[in-house]
Amino acid sequence: MELKINRYASMLKPSLIREMKVLADKYNDVIDFTLGEPHISRHTYEVIQEGLHHKMMESSLGYSHQYGIIELRMAISEYCKHNYGQIYDPYSEIIITTGVSEPISAVFKTILEEDDEVIIFSPSFTLYNTNVQMYGGKVVLYDMVENDMQVKEEVLSRLITAKTKAILVNSPCNPTGKIFSEEENEVIYNCIKDKPIFVISDEIYREIVFEQKKCCSLSKYPRLRDRLFILNGFSKSYAMTGWRIGYVLGPKEFINTVAVVHQNFVASASTISQYAALEALNHPELTKNIQQLYEKNRNYVYQQLKPYFKHVVLPEGAFYLYIDVSNYGLTSYEFAMNLLKSKQVAIVPSMAFEPNDSGYVRLSYCCDFETLRAGVLRIQNFIKSL
Amino acid sequence: MELKINRYASMLKPSLIREMKVLADKYNDVIDFTLGEPHISRHTYEVIQEGLHHKMMESSLGYSHQYGIIELRMAISEYCKHNYGQIYDPYSEIIITTGVSEPISAVFKTILEEDDEVIIFSPSFTLYNTNVQMYGGKVVLYDMVENDMQVKEEVLSRLITAKTKAILVNSPCNPTGKIFSEEENEVIYNCIKDKPIFVISDEIYREIVFEQKKCCSLSKYPRLRDRLFILNGFSKSYAMTGWRIGYVLGPKEFINTVAVVHQNFVASASTISQYAALEALNHPELTKNIQQLYEKNRNYVYQQLKPYFKHVVLPEGAFYLYIDVSNYGLTSYEFAMNLLKSKQVAIVPSMAFEPNDSGYVRLSYCCDFETLRAGVLRIQNFIKSL
Repeated sequence: MELKINRYASMLKPSLIREMKVLADKYNDVIDFTLGEPHISRHTYEVIQEGLHHKMMESSLGYSHQYGIIELRMAISEYCKHNYGQIYDPYSEIIITTGVSEPISAVFKTILEEDDEVIIFSPSFTLYNTNVQMYGGKVVLYDMVENDMQVKEEVLSRLITAKTKAILVNSPCNPTGKIFSEEENEVIYNCIKDKPIFVISDEIYREIVFEQKKCCSLSKYPRLRDRLFILNGFSKSYAMTGWRIGYVLGPKEFINTVAVVHQNFVASASTISQYAALEALNHPELTKNIQQLYEKNRNYVYQQLKPYFKHVVLPEGAFYLYIDVSNYGLTSYEFAMNLLKSKQVAIVPSMAFEPNDSGYVRLSYCCDFETLRAGVLRIQNFIKSL
Repeated sequence: MELKINRYASMLKPSLIREMKVLADKYNDVIDFTLGEPHISRHTYEVIQEGLHHKMMESSLGYSHQYGIIELRMAISEYCKHNYGQIYDPYSEIIITTGVSEPISAVFKTILEEDDEVIIFSPSFTLYNTNVQMYGGKVVLYDMVENDMQVKEEVLSRLITAKTKAILVNSPCNPTGKIFSEEENEVIYNCIKDKPIFVISDEIYREIVFEQKKCCSLSKYPRLRDRLFILNGFSKSYAMTGWRIGYVLGPKEFINTVAVVHQNFVASASTISQYAALEALNHPELTKNIQQLYEKNRNYVYQQLKPYFKHVVLPEGAFYLYIDVSNYGLTSYEFAMNLLKSKQVAIVPSMAFEPNDSGYVRLSYCCDFETLRAGVLRIQNFIKSL
C-alpha cells in the first residue's frame, strides 16, 4: 500500500534563502544578510498603530470581500493612477492578496496548463520558478549573466515558442537590483506584442530606486493592457513583510478568475493587515525613508566590496547586491558557507536564484547602516584570510 | 490571437455564500444570516489587544518561518495534545496557515493528480469541491441528504475505487451541524484502512458542540496517523475570521511537502496574526463564551423554525441550521431570494453546498440573540405570507 502525492509537488524544494536564514539563526552574533526584509518594520508599526487601532475599533473585523476591503482597493487605485499612471477599476481589476507571493501563485494557477512555457529572466526570485513547476509548467530562462545583464532581442526572440504562455518581468530585480530600461522594455514588447502571451510585471521594488532614476513599466503599452498582471505590495516599500499584504492589478476579464483562485487559496486577505496597509498609505514618508536609507547603504556596500570581486552588479533599485565571488576559487555555496562559519556573516548563494552555480552570491543590505558596516568589515577580513 | 487560461481555473465559480452576502449588503436594514462569522470578533480584539501590542513591540514583525513562529507551533502542539490527545511535533508536523482555506488548498495541491477522486460528504463547505476541481481532481459525493444524514458502510464502500486518493470529513459539519458519531468514524475507518487513501479531517468547529457532546476525530486511529491531515484554526472558536489564521497537523513525511506548497502560495502566514492567535490561546474563555452563546441561539432557532418546515437538521455543533424549505413549493434559491426581497433576511440556498438543489437552505446563527430573534420573526412572517 503506497501513498502517492502529486508528482510536481513531490519535486519542490524549500527556498534556499529560507534555509540559509535558518542556518544563520544557529550562530551567535551573526550578521544576517539573507532575507529581503526591511529592518524598520517596527517603525512602521509605531507610525500606524494609533490609526490602525481606531480603524479596528470602528470596523468589522470579519472576513473581507474576496477582492479586499473596498476602501483599500480605492486607495490603491488612486495610488497607482497618481504614481504610475496605471488606471485600474477598484471594483473589478484589483485584488488584495496575501503578500505578493500569493498573486504569483494565483496568476500562474489561473493561466498555466501543463507544459506551458514561462520566460523568466535569470537570476530571479525563487518562487517564480517553483510556482511554475508546481503547476506543471516549464520555466524557460533568459540568462542575464551570460548576456551582460542586458535584454537582447535576438536572444529573447529565440526563446519564444508556440508553447510560451507568459513572460515575467521583475524590475527593479531581485537579486540584482537591475532596472529594465525603456529600451529593454521595448525589446520585450516587440518580441511579444503579436503573440498570445501574458505579461506578469512584479513591481514590488518599484519605489526603491536610486539616483532619482525613473522605473518604467510594461504598463505603458496600451496593447498589453488586456493581458498584463501587475503585482505590488506593502512588504518592501512600507517595511510590512510580516503583515502579508500585496495586490494584483489586471484586466477584468482575467482578474475575475484570479479572484476565484485567490478565494480558493485563502478566502480573503487578512482584514487587519488590510487596515494596516490603508493606514500606511497615509504615510508616504515611510517609503521615502526606506528609499533614502537603502540608497546610502547601496553606495557604501557597492564601493566597499567592488574592489574585491570579479564582478559586482551596480544596483539601480531594490536592496540587494549581486556579487560574483568566483575569483576566490570557491563555488558560491562554499563561499557563503565558509563566510558563515568563519565570520558569522550570512548571505545567499546563486543556486537560490539560478539553475546552476554562476559564482554569484546575494547580499541583502536592507539593514541599519552600522550592521552593514560591521558585516562588510567581516567580509573584507574573510577575503583577506582566503 | 487568443489568450487561453487553465481549463480548470476557467470553470471555477465564485462562492455562492459570498455572492449572497454581496446581495444582502445592497439592502437597508437587512438581517444577514449568510456568513459563518462569529459576531463577537471585536470582543476578541478587545481582550487580546494589550497583550498583542506588547508582543508586537517586543518581537520581529518580519516574515515568520514558513512553518510559522515556533512559539505558536509549540502552543498549538500543547493545545492539541491537552484537548484532543493529538500528538504532533511542533518542529516538523505543524504548519501555521492563512486560515483553514489555505491548508485545504495546499493539501489538495500536494496530493492530487488529475482525475484522482476525493470522497466528500454532501452537503459540504464549498471550497472543498472547488479546490479539488481546481487541481483537476474529481469530487465523489456521498449524499447525506439521501441517506438520512448517516454514514452507511454499504453506501460508502461502493464509492471507493482504485482512483480514490482521499476522503474528507468535516465534523461538526458546515452546513448541517452534524457530528460524525463514533460508529460512523468506525465505518469510514473500516472502508479505507487497507487502502492507500489520505484522510483530511477539517475540525474547525470542533470546540463548538452542544449538550456537552464529545466530538470524536479520526485521529483516534493509530493506523491512520501516517496519512491523516487535521485542519483547524482560530476563525470560529476565537471569532478571528478576519485575522486569517489556521493550521494543519500531519505526518512529517508529507507535511514537509505541504510546507513547500504553502511557501509557494503565501511565503508564510501573517506574523501579526500569529501573535494575535498566540495571545488568544491565553483566553480559553473566548471559546467557552462562543460555545454558550451559540448553544442558546441553536436551541431557540431550532425550536422556532422546526414547526414550519419539512425537515430541519438538529445541529450538534457549529452554528448553522440546515432547513428543508421544499414544502413551500419553491426552489431553495427562490425561497432565499424571495425572503431577502420581501423581508430583508439573507440566507444561503443549498446550491452553495450541494451539486443540485436539495430544497435546503443554510441559516448561520452566529449572531447576537436579538438579531436572531428579529430574523426568525421575519422568517415566520414571510412563511405566513406564502
